[in-house]
Parts: sequence; structure tokens; C-alpha cells
Amino acid sequence: MQISPLLESLISALRCLPGVGPKSAQRMAYHLLQRNRQAGLHLAHELNEAMNNIGHCKACRTFTEQEICTICANVRRQSSDQLCVVESPADIFAIEQTGQYSGRYFVLLGHLSPLDGIGPSDIGLDLLKSRLASESIHEVILATNPTVEGDATANYIAQMCNEFNIVATRIAHGVPVGGELEMVDGTTLSHSFVGRQKIDF
Amino acid sequence: MQISPLLESLISALRCLPGVGPKSAQRMAYHLLQRNRQAGLHLAHELNEAMNNIGHCKACRTFTEQEICTICANVRRQSSDQLCVVESPADIFAIEQTGQYSGRYFVLLGHLSPLDGIGPSDIGLDLLKSRLASESIHEVILATNPTVEGDATANYIAQMCNEFNIVATRIAHGVPVGGELEMVDGTTLSHSFVGRQKIDF
Ligand SMILES: [Zn+2]
Ligand SMILES: [Zn+2]
Repeated sequence: MQISPLLESLISALRCLPGVGPKSAQRMAYHLLQRNRQAGLHLAHELNEAMNNIGHCKACRTFTEQEICTICANVRRQSSDQLCVVESPADIFAIEQTGQYSGRYFVLLGHLSPLDGIGPSDIGLDLLKSRLASESIHEVILATNPTVEGDATANYIAQMCNEFNIVATRIAHGVPVGGELEMVDGTTLSHSFVGRQKIDF
Repeated sequence: MQISPLLESLISALRCLPGVGPKSAQRMAYHLLQRNRQAGLHLAHELNEAMNNIGHCKACRTFTEQEICTICANVRRQSSDQLCVVESPADIFAIEQTGQYSGRYFVLLGHLSPLDGIGPSDIGLDLLKSRLASESIHEVILATNPTVEGDATANYIAQMCNEFNIVATRIAHGVPVGGELEMVDGTTLSHSFVGRQKIDF
């Protein structure tokens, strides 16, 4: 029984959003129609703008509607000799939130995955290589995900850095701060043992 | 640090969706940009279509892009002498899913709430009254929510039905089928005692 084809289409379109199943898509559609049509129209406008105009930064490959993103265009950032390599633009956002890092970034937009046919050029490593060759970079911080693919990708890039005599470092993996030891999985816990550090007095 | 104003605007616009906080809005925006821009543009289109073209059925007030919704326009439904009153269009969807009801509907788009200044005319009761007066309706099934306001609204409409010598019934409230007794709240449990029925052999 199709009560409103337009409503059904909206509900089905909302399911393109990650984590949105049939029930919540329905709830979203009814909510917008009943309470906030202006917000629905505004969302439509922003979706159009973003999907059509956001591209990738020519230097770091993160999302931006400009040639060069605001981080890469920042003079203070340019004078840093650190480059942090991440898998996705969302990782930059997370790292920026910490306020701990003030260097530049490079976004792979994925990771090496030979079985899926994803090789070095698919994750922008030619561009990274040319940056390592031409810019004054002292340290490359490898902040890819702590997965098999993320680790393999980090190792591959570490070898590239070695060719250019650039220090490659890997972010520490271990027990999350504030977490309880007994809740942490075994792999993480063994990482936290291997990566243990001497307490200095 | 604004990396991409368009991206930030999209993330903030996504928060108009119920149940979407800052973290999931961000995840949705990145997902669409990285994996499925076509779906993002399609969603924008469907949002525009729905927000601009979906209105309310002139007979039952549910959402529809036509004058009269497909349920009200259905000849078999018109020959039914039952009218089911619900608070929101989503309730029709839920009742239709059960396959138990084949009569007509009336959508209040809310409930009586004197403290918020919501009176009978705000929930379409003039229209309902004219339908009770002019159509051949034998039973009005009151399926408003089992809340204080929903109950009060049901009682008010039951009195209207009485003026027209139309039977008013209230849907049963009780322990959900498949639920565990000990998980049910006290009010529901006492409803299920008051509404107990004799087992016929
Ligand atoms: Zn950049
Ligand atoms: Zn209708």
C-alpha cells in the first residue's frame, strides 16, 4: 500500500546515510515533514553544495572546496618540519581536536590492499614521494589505522622515508586513557606491553 | 580551525535529523563525500521534492502529494464503516503493516493540550465532526497514544461520537506480545490487568 510515493522515495533515499535503517529513515522523514520543512530544504541545499563543490586539496588530498586547504595554506604549518600521514580526512579532524599537533598532513584516502588491487599510486604515494623529495620534512608521523592494512601501509611509507633520510615514526597503540584494563582486547593489551616506556624520575 | 566551510555547513545541516549528533553527522558527511556523492545528490533531490510537494489529504489529513490520499481514494476502504483516529501519519504506516485493519483513517497531527494552547480545531476536530455527520461510519477506533494527552483526546472524541450515536472503541493497552512480564513498567502492567479478558473454550 503506497500512501505517498514521494514520501517512500525520501525514506529510501535517507538510507544512503551510514547507520540509518528503515525505521530511523522513516522517523527522519516524518520528523522533517511534520516539524521542520525549512531544515529539510536547507539540508538539501547543503548536500548539493557539498557534493558538487568539495574536491581534494592539491597538497594533502583532504576535502576542501579550494585548490589548497586552509591547513596547507597556513604559513605556520608550512614552517613545521613534521608531516602526519592519515587514512581519511576524518582522522585530521580527530587529530586537530587534540590540539597536540601543529604540522602538516597527508591523506591517503584509503590504505594499501593488494587483494583489492589498491596499490601505491591509488593512495597518492607518488604525490607523497614528490613532497618528501621537494619539501623540508624532518619527520613523517604514520597515523594510519592500527589494522593489518594500516600497519602494512605505514611500513611501506616508512621505507620510502628511509630513501630520503627522513625519520618515520608510528603513533603509539595501547590501552585507551580512562579505559579499564580488563575491558581491553588482547591485541591492544599486548601492544601496550611491547610499547611500554620507562618512567623517568 | 575550519578546514572546509562547506563541509562544516553540511555536518551542521545533517543535525536537523532526529537522533543525529555531531559525531554521526560528521560520519555521514565524510561517508557521502568519500564513497557516494551520487547518493548524496539523490537525497538532496528527494528532500526538495518531498518538502515542497507533500501536503495533507483533504479527507484524513495524512501526508500525501495529492488532494486525497490513496487510502481515502480506495473504493474498498470507502465501503468500510470503520474510522481509525491516530495522532500521526507514522501511526497509519504502523497499523497498515499489521494487515489487521481495512477501514479509513483520520490523522489528528497532534493531540489536545490545553496548556500549550492546542484545542479541538488545531487537531482537525471540526473536519472530523463533519465527517461523522455526513459519512456512514459505524465505529470510531481511537488509536491515539497511551499517554495522558492521548487518553484525554480519545475521551473527547468519544463524546463527539456519542452525539452522533457512533460506537467509539479504544485500542487495548497491555503487555507487549513476546515481551517479558518483569520488563514491563507498572502502568502498562496494571492496564493489562484492568483490560483482562475471559478465556473462551
Ligand atoms: Zn591540504
Ligand atoms: Zn486520506
